[in-house]
Amino acid sequence: MKHFTSKDIHEMPSRYRAHLINSCTGYKSANLLGTKSVSGISNLAIFNSVVHIGSTPPMLGFILRPLTVARDTYKNFKETGFFTVNQVNNEIIEGAHQTAASYNEHISEFSKTNLTETYLDQFHAPYVDESAIKLGCSYVNEYRIEENGCVMIIGAIEHIYLPDDILHEDGWLQLDKQNAVVTNGLDAYALPKLLNRFSYAEPDKPLQKLL
Amino acid sequence: MKHFTSKDIHEMPSRYRAHLINSCTGYKSANLLGTKSVSGISNLAIFNSVVHIGSTPPMLGFILRPLTVARDTYKNFKETGFFTVNQVNNEIIEGAHQTAASYNEHISEFSKTNLTETYLDQFHAPYVDESAIKLGCSYVNEYRIEENGCVMIIGAIEHIYLPDDILHEDGWLQLDKQNAVVTNGLDAYALPKLLNRFSYAEPDKPLQKLL
Repeated sequence: MKHFTSKDIHEMPSRYRAHLINSCTGYKSANLLGTKSVSGISNLAIFNSVVHIGSTPPMLGFILRPLTVARDTYKNFKETGFFTVNQVNNEIIEGAHQTAASYNEHISEFSKTNLTETYLDQFHAPYVDESAIKLGCSYVNEYRIEENGCVMIIGAIEHIYLPDDILHEDGWLQLDKQNAVVTNGLDAYALPKLLNRFSYAEPDKPLQKLL
Repeated sequence: MKHFTSKDIHEMPSRYRAHLINSCTGYKSANLLGTKSVSGISNLAIFNSVVHIGSTPPMLGFILRPLTVARDTYKNFKETGFFTVNQVNNEIIEGAHQTAASYNEHISEFSKTNLTETYLDQFHAPYVDESAIKLGCSYVNEYRIEENGCVMIIGAIEHIYLPDDILHEDGWLQLDKQNAVVTNGLDAYALPKLLNRFSYAEPDKPLQKLL
């Protein structure tokens, strides 16, 4: 077993440290955040930090790196109030990864990838047509993490679009039916297959497999 | 394509809404957080909200539900300053899921599951022996999300333990080599297989596959 201490981590080359720290907490979700500037330029960026914040009301959160450089996604949802969250599947991982490149604010990532910009129900922000699960969200609040200047954004989920065949009768979505992927660190993608669902955990009661 | 509006979501039965909202943002990481009370009772709880906060210094974050009821994990790391983060793999998903049951504070989840409590290098908090990747962390700060009372906890990564064979020469960890799993909503688990790694994305430069 390999052991890295705080001192070891501090003394690593920064790229090595970035790979290690980004992968040691496990797989993360892969979502494309779509926004549009007030001047009408669309933007698309991959995020692996979307987390569940609450169901009632439905909210999600994600982490932005420090705002010391221009962040088109941030500027757009702050100015317009809206963004979309689009699930990445195994057929679009290359285009999704390419959205991480630093295009200038006048260039839409949709024009530089094979991802298709689409608009639904007059929502301001663009959705990714190739994503099976699409969420229309509004900006709610932000919390600056004083330890390193990152910002946690809170959004409200206002629209959910999804294919009928992944929706189970109790509201659960079976993500492997649409080949949703996960990220493994900064630059790798993996495809999960469902193992099982379990009953609600209670003390001294054996779990039931639901599938 | 199915479409749920804000109104639809608001009017759903609460359990249906919880399943839908927890699964619509994609797979999440599966980690067991280990703590020990000042009186020496260990605690283990599954979390699917661990996110990357920064590499320099190395920090992670996770979301706690509102502190209106007793949260042993919170009480323990606040009083002692330490917790561990242990990767869930496909052989321990049932034990990991069972840690979500509401045991009282005098009962250790280790005693109610097949998970083995272990201590490394005099660290205060217990690790899960069956987890291939184990992180020893210290409590740094917390941010209360005023919209619903959830709390984001920030921790510093002080120790990383992992098997040699998952560590690549650039610091990246290949998570499928140790069968790390992900969560799909509140009660399902899935096993990812690696698709590929890509080169750093830059404007107008084709991505290279690294594997």
